[in-house]
Amino acid sequence: MSLLVVGSVAFDAIESPYGKVDRIIGGAATYFAVAASFFTHVNLVGVVGDDFTKEDEAIFRGRKIDTLGLERTAGKCFFWAGKYSQHLNERETLVTELNVFADFQPKLSKASREAGTVFLANIQPDLQREVREQCRAASFVGLDSMNYWIETARDSLFETISVVDALLLNDTEVRMLTGESSLARASKELRKQGPGVVVCKEGEYGAALFTGESVFSLPGYPLEAAVDPTGAGDAFAGGFFGYLAARAPEPLTDSALRCATVYGSVMGSFNVEGFGTERIQRLTSSEITARFHEFKRLTHFEPLPVAGPSREVSAVAPG
Amino acid sequence: MSLLVVGSVAFDAIESPYGKVDRIIGGAATYFAVAASFFTHVNLVGVVGDDFTKEDEAIFRGRKIDTLGLERTAGKCFFWAGKYSQHLNERETLVTELNVFADFQPKLSKASREAGTVFLANIQPDLQREVREQCRAASFVGLDSMNYWIETARDSLFETISVVDALLLNDTEVRMLTGESSLARASKELRKQGPGVVVCKEGEYGAALFTGESVFSLPGYPLEAAVDPTGAGDAFAGGFFGYLAARAPEPLTDSALRCATVYGSVMGSFNVEGFGTERIQRLTSSEITARFHEFKRLTHFEPLPVAGPSREVSAVAPG
Repeated sequence: MSLLVVGSVAFDAIESPYGKVDRIIGGAATYFAVAASFFTHVNLVGVVGDDFTKEDEAIFRGRKIDTLGLERTAGKCFFWAGKYSQHLNERETLVTELNVFADFQPKLSKASREAGTVFLANIQPDLQREVREQCRAASFVGLDSMNYWIETARDSLFETISVVDALLLNDTEVRMLTGESSLARASKELRKQGPGVVVCKEGEYGAALFTGESVFSLPGYPLEAAVDPTGAGDAFAGGFFGYLAARAPEPLTDSALRCATVYGSVMGSFNVEGFGTERIQRLTSSEITARFHEFKRLTHFEPLPVAGPSREVSAVAPG
Repeated sequence: MSLLVVGSVAFDAIESPYGKVDRIIGGAATYFAVAASFFTHVNLVGVVGDDFTKEDEAIFRGRKIDTLGLERTAGKCFFWAGKYSQHLNERETLVTELNVFADFQPKLSKASREAGTVFLANIQPDLQREVREQCRAASFVGLDSMNYWIETARDSLFETISVVDALLLNDTEVRMLTGESSLARASKELRKQGPGVVVCKEGEYGAALFTGESVFSLPGYPLEAAVDPTGAGDAFAGGFFGYLAARAPEPLTDSALRCATVYGSVMGSFNVEGFGTERIQRLTSSEITARFHEFKRLTHFEPLPVAGPSREVSAVAPG
């Protein structure tokens, strides 16, 4: 089934202890589309300026990505510059220039409006809601957001949350949005607002999936060569929704959502291995499948026949 | 087989958003011993002042804890006061009074020297090494440390690391000790220094186990009622080494180390549910076993027959 993503296509300048790039293609919709295209066809809706060349657009070519919805307008692309700390766990935003993105009004083609699965990448929550309302055929709509909207458009964000099926946020955002320390309690709270599925992304520490049925948690992949976390959350979303869209119209079971979380983690972890989309651009399906199975080995344990806590405790045995 | 722990027994004053206690029994050896005693007999070696009453000592009674090695000396117990941030993920030390702990010289009884499994809780690394040298019968010796020793006794700490079998540190300490951002790479580095086993504790995010054979990673338990993280790392160590000591002389397989990591996480997660040792004191074996199995459900996933990445990608399918 078809998958629609609405979000930013941008240029990024990134500095990490592992290198520096001055102008690479970034933006949530870019990372999402490249990652999801390994699983299914993607319609991309976004806006770029006239500095986005045919050469730049090559990033989408040769993939299952339909860029008819990528609007071109006079002006410059959204530009973001950031710098990561020594251990890549903190980042400082150096520059944010919205440029053509400031007046972004998503225009959906008929094909986009008929998508079964939709991902509303991080944009202004009113716009996200407008898109959601136009996608009448969508049976599974996901939403990402960020601290900026939590702070400046809280009511609108909650209104949008109430009309989506899945909410993907990082742990800091989940806490900021709910004021809850416990991610488990916070996710319960958020699920009451509407979305049946809450995914809490924890960066290098993994991700947790909260549904009505259960909690699933997956640790981070033990990367030896992380170089740039930019876009990892969007690549995660691409793997997550790409996998689910590829399965449609199979039912959205708890098992399927767990696998989607693993594929999301696979895509996010690969993404961090290169600057920008560099690593996921040269990824192969067999690498994806291999890492899925590595996650299985990474997390596998079985109770052993001998031992476990003794029966006579607590507070019974002699000191 | 017998288990020895050498470390602090202390009084703590703790403040978190969930409450405040002025004087509860803490110290690494206390948390460790209470947690480990659910699995096996523990010899505790430490020192307390004359302010440590018979009533205080009741915490060890009725458990498989031998306190013959808990020395009493004139003066006051080690005292620590700390305050946790809103989400419990940061803490500020308000007071550290070493008191009788400043001159702690571990004295090992014959029984202690004959322990098969030993945990050197966080004390000065020279002292840890002296204890390790006296425990000639020990086949599995674990070590914990802290940022203070990494900064002020780095060479001694590395010397001690070279004579133990397992190193348990939190992620920040692992990075501080190695200068490596990647915990996988850092653990590889640390294993080259001697210990075959490195456990990286990640607080609410779980723990990772690095052995010569594999990497095992377990997410944190999705607690709804975390109130005080104090001692969670030591309760983790108690579950980890308690389980392994209970299994001895069974071989220390990769599977056993994975189960030990789960039991460590079980004990650490329960510990956080109460102030100080409050929760693990009233824990039962069946609660421990139940949470072990909950970890299994929490992390379970299976590849499904339909979907996964398509075969024809990357960079082949039409855009």
